[in-house]
Amino acid sequence: MSEPQRTRRPGGRSARVGAEVHRAVTDLIGERGYGNFTVGEVAVRAGVADSTVYRRWGSLEALLTDVALTRLNAQSPMPDTGNLVGDLRTYAAQVAREITGPDGLLLVRLAVALSSIGPQGLRARDDLRDERTRQLQSMLDRATERGERAPDALDVLDHILAPMYIRVLFGMELTPEYVDGLVDRML
Amino acid sequence: MSEPQRTRRPGGRSARVGAEVHRAVTDLIGERGYGNFTVGEVAVRAGVADSTVYRRWGSLEALLTDVALTRLNAQSPMPDTGNLVGDLRTYAAQVAREITGPDGLLLVRLAVALSSIGPQGLRARDDLRDERTRQLQSMLDRATERGERAPDALDVLDHILAPMYIRVLFGMELTPEYVDGLVDRML
Repeated sequence: MSEPQRTRRPGGRSARVGAEVHRAVTDLIGERGYGNFTVGEVAVRAGVADSTVYRRWGSLEALLTDVALTRLNAQSPMPDTGNLVGDLRTYAAQVAREITGPDGLLLVRLAVALSSIGPQGLRARDDLRDERTRQLQSMLDRATERGERAPDALDVLDHILAPMYIRVLFGMELTPEYVDGLVDRML
Repeated sequence: MSEPQRTRRPGGRSARVGAEVHRAVTDLIGERGYGNFTVGEVAVRAGVADSTVYRRWGSLEALLTDVALTRLNAQSPMPDTGNLVGDLRTYAAQVAREITGPDGLLLVRLAVALSSIGPQGLRARDDLRDERTRQLQSMLDRATERGERAPDALDVLDHILAPMYIRVLFGMELTPEYVDGLVDRML
């Protein structure tokens, strides 16, 4: 299908195209895994022209990253409970829920896929990492501004996120006690 | 090619078949990625019958796991320096070298691939994890036998291996100081 609805208001159409393209990508990832489909196939599935996808996202890698970030931000927005331990425990519990869910290894799978497809993939992977690190750091900066002694985002990555991801990747359970324990140990 | 050399002594032939099949798997992983080839394609590439592969390994998943374990064991055998901090620093440095090398994310890629292909894949992934954990635990048990206070294998996984894997997966550098720091922090 080409673009028959060009006369509708741009905001509405733009949001609709975004949602359709995201849905198409999510479906194709579920059916075939990352990297096993093309922009053309996404466009057909979403009912838009290839050029619409290229104009808006630039590349398949950038589109995959946008879809992943949108989902991650919806699944685990940065909490703001008013204190560091509350923020970190809430965040760790959210991530634990998310990564033990049906498409839990989204971020790991995407990073593996992006690492395998050349320079554009590596750039997309770095953008994804930098954006999530920036979000995490802003939560930690709020703690510092309140006068709390906060770790930096890389400490949280190393000692809270990394163990949870690797345990899930290798089929181990994450209990709430284990997850809280990671936070307490790091602090 | 079927099996023309059946009359040679079994040990020699068996070792040769093992080496050819491992080489075929390694080449196919490099060319297509995990999961994107069949036992039949491995057999053709190795110059053996499909049935030879099935008889010896049982499934593609079990074969992939065998190849990965063989490589991991060759790249990072468990050190035995006579003390825990020496063992852990040597092991961490080996793993860091291995995972920043050309096919560094072998284990992560394999775990992702095995997690995506059903129950047989999950069993192969669990076997891989259990075998590596067992090897690591035996190094730690030697420390305990010497009277040292040793962490358990899961602590090493959580706070030394997981951060290194996740950092490499997301394109971050591992300096020797960082790697030693992970060991010191855990102990």
